[in-house]
Amino acid sequence: MDKTDYLFLRAIRKEPVGRTPIWIMRQAGRYLPEYRALREKYDFVTVCKTPELATEVTLQPLRRFGFDAAILFSDILVIPEAMGQELQFLEDHGPKLSPAVRTENDLDGLSTEAVTDKLQYVADAVRMIRSEIDGKAPLIGFSGSPFTLAAYMIEGKPTRHFRHIKAMLYKNPAFLHRLLQTLAKTITDYLKMQIEAGAQAVQIFDTWGSILPIHLFDEFSGQYLKQIAYELQDLKVPVILFSMGGIDHLIQLGDSQAQVLGVDWHTDLAQVKKLLHSEYALQGNLDPTVLYGSKEIISREVERILSLFRNESGHIFNLGHGILPDIPIENVEFLIEEVRRLSEAFH
Amino acid sequence: MDKTDYLFLRAIRKEPVGRTPIWIMRQAGRYLPEYRALREKYDFVTVCKTPELATEVTLQPLRRFGFDAAILFSDILVIPEAMGQELQFLEDHGPKLSPAVRTENDLDGLSTEAVTDKLQYVADAVRMIRSEIDGKAPLIGFSGSPFTLAAYMIEGKPTRHFRHIKAMLYKNPAFLHRLLQTLAKTITDYLKMQIEAGAQAVQIFDTWGSILPIHLFDEFSGQYLKQIAYELQDLKVPVILFSMGGIDHLIQLGDSQAQVLGVDWHTDLAQVKKLLHSEYALQGNLDPTVLYGSKEIISREVERILSLFRNESGHIFNLGHGILPDIPIENVEFLIEEVRRLSEAFH
Repeated sequence: MDKTDYLFLRAIRKEPVGRTPIWIMRQAGRYLPEYRALREKYDFVTVCKTPELATEVTLQPLRRFGFDAAILFSDILVIPEAMGQELQFLEDHGPKLSPAVRTENDLDGLSTEAVTDKLQYVADAVRMIRSEIDGKAPLIGFSGSPFTLAAYMIEGKPTRHFRHIKAMLYKNPAFLHRLLQTLAKTITDYLKMQIEAGAQAVQIFDTWGSILPIHLFDEFSGQYLKQIAYELQDLKVPVILFSMGGIDHLIQLGDSQAQVLGVDWHTDLAQVKKLLHSEYALQGNLDPTVLYGSKEIISREVERILSLFRNESGHIFNLGHGILPDIPIENVEFLIEEVRRLSEAFH
Repeated sequence: MDKTDYLFLRAIRKEPVGRTPIWIMRQAGRYLPEYRALREKYDFVTVCKTPELATEVTLQPLRRFGFDAAILFSDILVIPEAMGQELQFLEDHGPKLSPAVRTENDLDGLSTEAVTDKLQYVADAVRMIRSEIDGKAPLIGFSGSPFTLAAYMIEGKPTRHFRHIKAMLYKNPAFLHRLLQTLAKTITDYLKMQIEAGAQAVQIFDTWGSILPIHLFDEFSGQYLKQIAYELQDLKVPVILFSMGGIDHLIQLGDSQAQVLGVDWHTDLAQVKKLLHSEYALQGNLDPTVLYGSKEIISREVERILSLFRNESGHIFNLGHGILPDIPIENVEFLIEEVRRLSEAFH
């Protein structure tokens, strides 16, 4: 099979597709029994850092469900770790980065040299996954966005109000821009490394762009996303921007060099389609909690989304946020069947 | 002073104002030293249930800052408690309601009779506050929205993913509607009681409307908000709808009988003004974390909001969510000064 013929890549280029491709954010992870079994033997960080294990976990959902794309198993916080923060995953408390970056001194202490050298285990995993799945599915690489990584690095631990980064936004924006610029450069190098190792598309997760009021989004997140997409354009692989926070945030990404916008489940996909589908392929946006629902309602919600793209390419089915760990696995199976069945009828 | 002449009420009616009125969500609360001092002697529930204490706490921010409106000190969860759930406030863990409402049996067990009788302490507090502040400031009463109260009642405790109510939304919507309809009726009675006791405006907090995807917002939250506003219209006091979740949610409230829309800080106030100011006065929407910022940036953000209403009435300055407990109190003073100084120049 010609690698450019993958359904996922065809949909990105808006070429005709016989059905809508589907993959799921966090498709490799805790909702899968085979993942939980492997995690009984190895902790999360060990899985990320061991290419054989990262490869195995990346492939698990493809074996079970035959998704139309694989996504590298890793974590967005490997970058702050490579820059010198200590990374811990505390059971039920989420990630901790220490020391938190709060002062010029903290910022000066971050290593920006040789970050990609330290992250060679990611490039190794990409190469290993590619050699396993070539001809079956394309591989998506990824990174957190500058603002999202800055939020984790400055807060240091899970937070509800993002007190520290928000205070910085309104007290010392110059400091924040210095960190964001450093991250934009590092993320660009990191994604280039993934692409050179074989990633056939990359997604940038801007989860915490959602904590920016609209009039500050472009200044603190949007412009850096666009900078990265611009820097990557010569590498000729599609860039997917997944920025949460609604249609107003997405509109501000209207002029980027990326090819795909990921749409979160809060956002009205019909409106995004109307305003932005001429510029972008769209990915999303089923509410992940629909998978707690009845088969009847899962079908209804899948059909609602697919019917927006009747006889049109340029849509990749996905959830509008990561799959939740306690989702019944039979509902994931049913979702995939329904996306295939219904989208074939629409194409 | 003619009570209808309060700046707050004039702004709601879009009558000329010499400056923009201001009050702040959670203006009575933990950021105030005098509130913390009182709470060392009495727990939260005791303060809510003792009219003298609720009155004292309601008045504290007015004494210190001279806000243009008082808001009743209470909690939205007094309704579920009056319906039969046990209410506990666990330090640092937020409210707990037990047993959580999950089955038809749980729903049948809820008391809907005599809820307002059980909440007479709220009516007593309203009367007592009115007798203290009459001629100085108007009093706002409030309730949670049906969907927001349902979320607390079904989850039972603080939650990140709202697993249970979201599952119900997609698995058993009829059950959810039965609870929502019961709540709409009870909330209407409760707000009528507050108005009859002397509340001069009422605000309905639809915080968790934000967890509804846009195509389900009207069905599960919007229609019930509109039903309550419709039922209250004969009482001739302004109704403020504060529904989080962005411009798309607000647009669906476009045809309600309420007079004011509260706008959260995520939402583009300029756009809300363009689309909805002809129907509504608008309240909001400074990002609460701006109050962590420098004086220079506080001024800039206040001016940005006020300049949208240059020479126009129909705006009440507020934060776009509740004030946070660790905000420096001198920044609140500065905010109020700036709103007065800048809005006078604009009017």
